[in-house]
Amino acid sequence: MTYSYDQLREFTFSMLTKIGCPESDAKTATDVLLSADLRGVDSHGVARLSGYVRLWEKGRINATPNVKVVHETPSTAVVDGDGGLGLVVAPFAMKVAIEKAKIAGTGWVSVKNSNHYGIAGYHAMQALEHDMIGISLTNASPLVAPTFSQERLLGTNPISVAIPAKNQPAFVADMATTTAANGKLEILQRKGMDTPTGWVQDKDGNPTTSATGVKEGGALLPLGGDREHGSHKGYALGSIVDIFSAVLSGANYGPWVPPFVAFLDPDPNPVGEGIGHFFGAMRVDAFRPADEFKAHMDNWISRFREAKPTPGNEKVLIPGDPERELETIRMKEGIPLLDPVVKDLTELGERFGVKF
Amino acid sequence: MTYSYDQLREFTFSMLTKIGCPESDAKTATDVLLSADLRGVDSHGVARLSGYVRLWEKGRINATPNVKVVHETPSTAVVDGDGGLGLVVAPFAMKVAIEKAKIAGTGWVSVKNSNHYGIAGYHAMQALEHDMIGISLTNASPLVAPTFSQERLLGTNPISVAIPAKNQPAFVADMATTTAANGKLEILQRKGMDTPTGWVQDKDGNPTTSATGVKEGGALLPLGGDREHGSHKGYALGSIVDIFSAVLSGANYGPWVPPFVAFLDPDPNPVGEGIGHFFGAMRVDAFRPADEFKAHMDNWISRFREAKPTPGNEKVLIPGDPERELETIRMKEGIPLLDPVVKDLTELGERFGVKF
Repeated sequence: MTYSYDQLREFTFSMLTKIGCPESDAKTATDVLLSADLRGVDSHGVARLSGYVRLWEKGRINATPNVKVVHETPSTAVVDGDGGLGLVVAPFAMKVAIEKAKIAGTGWVSVKNSNHYGIAGYHAMQALEHDMIGISLTNASPLVAPTFSQERLLGTNPISVAIPAKNQPAFVADMATTTAANGKLEILQRKGMDTPTGWVQDKDGNPTTSATGVKEGGALLPLGGDREHGSHKGYALGSIVDIFSAVLSGANYGPWVPPFVAFLDPDPNPVGEGIGHFFGAMRVDAFRPADEFKAHMDNWISRFREAKPTPGNEKVLIPGDPERELETIRMKEGIPLLDPVVKDLTELGERFGVKF
Repeated sequence: MTYSYDQLREFTFSMLTKIGCPESDAKTATDVLLSADLRGVDSHGVARLSGYVRLWEKGRINATPNVKVVHETPSTAVVDGDGGLGLVVAPFAMKVAIEKAKIAGTGWVSVKNSNHYGIAGYHAMQALEHDMIGISLTNASPLVAPTFSQERLLGTNPISVAIPAKNQPAFVADMATTTAANGKLEILQRKGMDTPTGWVQDKDGNPTTSATGVKEGGALLPLGGDREHGSHKGYALGSIVDIFSAVLSGANYGPWVPPFVAFLDPDPNPVGEGIGHFFGAMRVDAFRPADEFKAHMDNWISRFREAKPTPGNEKVLIPGDPERELETIRMKEGIPLLDPVVKDLTELGERFGVKF
């Protein structure tokens, strides 16, 4: 089934106000959540709405948080999310980073006591209109085994970096630090297909191509897949995201990060508060005149886009190209939702008296 | 042949003063270069010394540069390396980042008009003694093909992040954004062995396992190896390093980065000056008390190090463990150099009247 952006927006907004979010928070959270659906990161959009609601029902999400800066220097801050929706806490923190950058040249904000913040790219992209480079990192529930580890100790811990250009669209990287995101596994599971090598290990720590390997107690693998293909680099990247997001702020890190699913309880002995994020904003003209920088970014992007492609491939893509193209299409033609998601949202709406 | 650290240090220092480096610069550059040999990154140590000298002979390295800050804000600066050795320019720039961080909380420095800066990790680690997190990035001569590109457009563009701990040794990630660094290819070439899949493509852009593939006009592949294994992520990371290092500073980027080897001329139509680096320093206590942070880093490191290993592996490593262990051994037992390197350094010494 395909739904218009406006239909999904109204439903999401109504649901969020039903659980007690103030209108402006509900509006922000809806905007973040739906940007995932528009950009094709379907696993992080409305498909997650009932998950957030179940966490709220368990008392693990605060619908009326007092989000605030608890420590700061000219170019840094720590934000306490007060257990609020990451979809609300993250935009607040990114704004703080941008305001710091206006004065100090750059702004860096580490966040504790938050929850899942939607797609990383949304937050990084907030910097673009200010002629700033935006950076967005978050830790997440442990599903990933470091190189040589049988245990899951890291989340898919994404990195997003958004860089403005002049006439070209912005460069927007947004990626999990694993070989493949969990959403891709779910697609293969539904199709009953195997994964490529290097995506998953089984519960004993052996490589597997079973798409259900993670569900059965295995783990996702860091970018690289195995040592010979550089998985120690993906593991290091995921670790850096974890440390910047949570050890700097005072959130839970590594295996202590609370699970997103409401049916699993958080560790009874936490090492911090909630989950953590990290945001950066760098004013381009803190380095060189913005016009000059953006003209060179146009040149960079054109040169890469026009590179001679490898046999069988049409062209070289710039990070952000596929998501931007899909956003244009889906805004016009609507957002396709899978049957289980439609069923889930219909039931959710019925339970709260909101028509889906 | 094995040489003591002191032997190699004296030779390198003498050679650098012979080409006209002031003593304090020669001392700094020697320290950076030899840290690569100690830490096992043999391709970036004394093996490169004759390469730097040949660039100086071609007039492409300035032995007495006027390295200076040309633009700044409270938390940022641009450094012009004046064509100096990257081994001298980079420590200057990292110092600026650290000084900025003391006042503004963080410091971020982009560098233009520089040359190869040795190992990325050395520079990031300068932050540790100040209870700061250090970050070090650099672009490099184009040897890497972006996903779907037949052309080489990026260098191996490394990322290093050093994070202090309390009783545990520091976390030090230092990695090329390719599946494998060029040094590993050279080892396989000497042994006449093939590479694993995902390291190299041939001159037509097809995957190959030939260790000579890059020499024959092919390219190194971004971390991930191919699209199915996430090479678009390695490509995005290498691109971010390139843009932060060179588009922000005004250095050459992408395919315009001048080659390290003196027998290849730089592009006659450069888009900037020299090669570029990017450094960051973040004061830990700009976020939370340093003692608290470092105690949690100890906990993070212990938990990961003690994780249950996968079958056939002894233990989970922390980024920086192998290099630190090797440093201790080599400082005591000496640094092994391959015969071609010994021959190269002997000839270099003879040419300049310095005994190797």
